[in-house]
Amino acid sequence: MSEARTVIINVSARHVHLSPAHVEALFGPGYQLTVKKELMQPGQFAAEETVAVIGPKGSFPKVRVLGPARGASQVEISATDARTLGIPAVVRLSGNIAGTPGVILEGPKGRVELTEGVIVAARHIHMTPADAAKYGVTDRQVVRVKTNGGRPLTFDDVIVRVRDDMALEMHIDTDEANAAGIKDGDIGEILL
Amino acid sequence: MSEARTVIINVSARHVHLSPAHVEALFGPGYQLTVKKELMQPGQFAAEETVAVIGPKGSFPKVRVLGPARGASQVEISATDARTLGIPAVVRLSGNIAGTPGVILEGPKGRVELTEGVIVAARHIHMTPADAAKYGVTDRQVVRVKTNGGRPLTFDDVIVRVRDDMALEMHIDTDEANAAGIKDGDIGEILL
Repeated sequence: MSEARTVIINVSARHVHLSPAHVEALFGPGYQLTVKKELMQPGQFAAEETVAVIGPKGSFPKVRVLGPARGASQVEISATDARTLGIPAVVRLSGNIAGTPGVILEGPKGRVELTEGVIVAARHIHMTPADAAKYGVTDRQVVRVKTNGGRPLTFDDVIVRVRDDMALEMHIDTDEANAAGIKDGDIGEILL
Repeated sequence: MSEARTVIINVSARHVHLSPAHVEALFGPGYQLTVKKELMQPGQFAAEETVAVIGPKGSFPKVRVLGPARGASQVEISATDARTLGIPAVVRLSGNIAGTPGVILEGPKGRVELTEGVIVAARHIHMTPADAAKYGVTDRQVVRVKTNGGRPLTFDDVIVRVRDDMALEMHIDTDEANAAGIKDGDIGEILL
């Protein structure tokens, strides 16, 4: 067998991406997000800012905003979180939000009612075209990833996302991390 | 290949098993648990009674008690729940509670401080000796289970528990169910 196709796994806790208009609606006119910590994906950062995410049955008072601002606001939660909020858990790839549930966001300067945009992110691996060539995979290919955390399992439906501005990294949500006993930085093996 | 080794998967939400002494401490002298719903495992039931589970950082006000009363009290939660409560998530087989975290239980008539007994249940399959013979497995054998829910995955470390008074059933927690997109009654396939 050839060299193992390894990938760093990082765990996405619940977080919010905001459109520029929603940054202003929640934090005030002309407001710009503040970088708290650079993330592994180039240009992406955890912001100092948090918002409240309010559902029909429950809410989370301080959900981290990720920057920079992007085209459409999107809230990424776990299926456990969806139950707490009282909304359906709809598994989608990031950016594919048509017909997904909405939620209310509240910041220090205002509220926004999202009519859609709340997703449970489908597990995925970011990589560059060079990584993809090396590993013999293509954009949108579905692969398996074997993990070896405290509760070993093999994810059977992991979507590969290839783009020039991406770094090699697998993203799973907190339910998946808990089910696998995985923590940030653990290594998975891509199986074809 | 021979016939598939299928198993019904049921999802264990957080719940509490109580010793007879703790039933009385929480619900009053001479109190007996009331059957709300029979479970798949023979003689086991969800009780009408609930207790509050109180940790250093958070609590759950109404956690279902499962009956009948047993030797030692045990609280079964997900790793997500452990984080909410503010205690470590310790994965153990049911009954193996030495050195696990404690928690406070509160009922209508009193409080109990458990010094240990809070576990994240290791995923497992119950079966009779006849099932085990048919499937070619033995007590405590570790098997894999392939699932085909909304987010397919294969659990790599599932413990077989064989006993005369058990029915063929796999138990996973809510994090695992959410990671796999599984609901009660879904079917898994045991892989050896």
